Amino acid sequence: MATPIYDRIALIGIGLIGSSLARVIREKGLGNEISIATRSAETLDEARRLGLGDSYSTAAAEAVRDADLVIVSVPVGASESVAKEISGALKSGATVTDVGSTKASVVRQMAPHLPADVHFVPGHPIAGTEQSGPSAGFSTLFEGRWCILTPEPGVEPDAVARLTRFWEACGSTVEQMDKDHHDMVLAIVSHLPHIIAYNIVGTADDLETVTKSEVIKYSASGFRDFTRLAASDPIMWRDVCLHNKDAILEMLARFSEDLSSLQRAIRWGDGDKLFDIFSHTRSIRRSIVEAGQDISAPDFGRIGKKD
Amino acid sequence: MATPIYDRIALIGIGLIGSSLARVIREKGLGNEISIATRSAETLDEARRLGLGDSYSTAAAEAVRDADLVIVSVPVGASESVAKEISGALKSGATVTDVGSTKASVVRQMAPHLPADVHFVPGHPIAGTEQSGPSAGFSTLFEGRWCILTPEPGVEPDAVARLTRFWEACGSTVEQMDKDHHDMVLAIVSHLPHIIAYNIVGTADDLETVTKSEVIKYSASGFRDFTRLAASDPIMWRDVCLHNKDAILEMLARFSEDLSSLQRAIRWGDGDKLFDIFSHTRSIRRSIVEAGQDISAPDFGRIGKKD
Repeated sequence: MATPIYDRIALIGIGLIGSSLARVIREKGLGNEISIATRSAETLDEARRLGLGDSYSTAAAEAVRDADLVIVSVPVGASESVAKEISGALKSGATVTDVGSTKASVVRQMAPHLPADVHFVPGHPIAGTEQSGPSAGFSTLFEGRWCILTPEPGVEPDAVARLTRFWEACGSTVEQMDKDHHDMVLAIVSHLPHIIAYNIVGTADDLETVTKSEVIKYSASGFRDFTRLAASDPIMWRDVCLHNKDAILEMLARFSEDLSSLQRAIRWGDGDKLFDIFSHTRSIRRSIVEAGQDISAPDFGRIGKKD
Repeated sequence: MATPIYDRIALIGIGLIGSSLARVIREKGLGNEISIATRSAETLDEARRLGLGDSYSTAAAEAVRDADLVIVSVPVGASESVAKEISGALKSGATVTDVGSTKASVVRQMAPHLPADVHFVPGHPIAGTEQSGPSAGFSTLFEGRWCILTPEPGVEPDAVARLTRFWEACGSTVEQMDKDHHDMVLAIVSHLPHIIAYNIVGTADDLETVTKSEVIKYSASGFRDFTRLAASDPIMWRDVCLHNKDAILEMLARFSEDLSSLQRAIRWGDGDKLFDIFSHTRSIRRSIVEAGQDISAPDFGRIGKKD
């Protein structure tokens, strides 16, 4: 058991990320007490049934009282209302952080409402699965993952260092980044892939000439890799699109330009160009596997079979 | 050991698919003799080193002599030249099949050159990994997978039935389909996903504001799922694009229309529409898992970790 890094930790939102945090905090003794708040009474009941915390409330303001660390794990579009709700109840000297997939918007939404005597250190653990809710979480979710912190200039370095120790104790490697750069990086590595995945699954679903059951049956030939991303939480992704709009539109524009050029090569039978494009991308896969960000087993090492 | 289904089997092309066939034929005793041909002396040496067959040649015509079953496993663009090469050497009554990802073009390329006394039954095992070459094959590649046969009207039913038994013995479930319908189905479940994956990986590689090392580092947040497909054999995919052009262009047009509409919803902040699109696609993932075409373990059940 490690020494607790914070005495009392408040988790606002108890979905996949919040509930995984509750589990790792408990398992590794990173806090002495966990208070949990979520707006939905049903979700709160589920968290209570799972025994994720020490106290439970549907009121965020109640959960944050006396908390040394407040972790907001809600869809990014709900950040402002959470900030407003908790601002009057925060303990002086507390650290407030979040786990949202967009950072500039979260700062815009939360910073104006937080009192000057708390340390606001926005964060983003690059971890998740396509499943959601308190039951989907697990204590090793953050192990071997990156966590990006985007502290604003002027924030207390000790607060950042302590939060860094917390994420490291969860198993993550912490990096610091400017919030706007974070949003640009995530737009290409995460937001665009999800949007494209949602889109292709939608296109397939609308076909008249190919039945849905054929799409499902033969999905192992490529399609199914996209469906995992397209099964992610729709509220979370709606909010990501609305709150990282500029970076996403920029990436979409580039993607579409490139696709038009590829499409033209197909139409005009330009085999050399197609070969160039298709060879070029192989090396990135190799680098990802070398960097330990994926496994080289064919087919992602899937074990499951049709029968 | 099953009874051999064919006496002598010729494998033309010995990459991932051809070499997996060699292994399963040997392992399950599906043929008494395996002759292997590939144009590249280097690849042939590799096959010989691996002990994949009983005889080896760089001349396809030599390998098919006396063969009861000829399986052509080459990039689809090479189908016509193989057909021309083997046509004079085929045994009367032999069955000729292939494993290409497009079917109408393969029929167009091969049928005119094959003599009337052989049975031509085009086929497509829906199996593969992102790896290529004789060393990448394995005997269980076809287990629990679909294999689609697209026999032309008028072909000998016994020849189709025998080839069906062969694929079933390899572990596959065989379906019959019209060649044009096959090409439409595969365009959406396989060809479009690969093209989109190649494209997004290319877009990411070209960015000025986000470094390649950042893309690699944070790829687990969505991007890496695309890189698996984008690491597939470039020659194979060049040929697929050139030989299933019409169906692919049709799917690309639909995909782009849908993406423009999604992009517009992002630009204008239409949260309801985004939520609709993103909820809609979740059910397809569920159906794919229920149909046993993927596993429900989060993250495809990947075992590997960063450290």
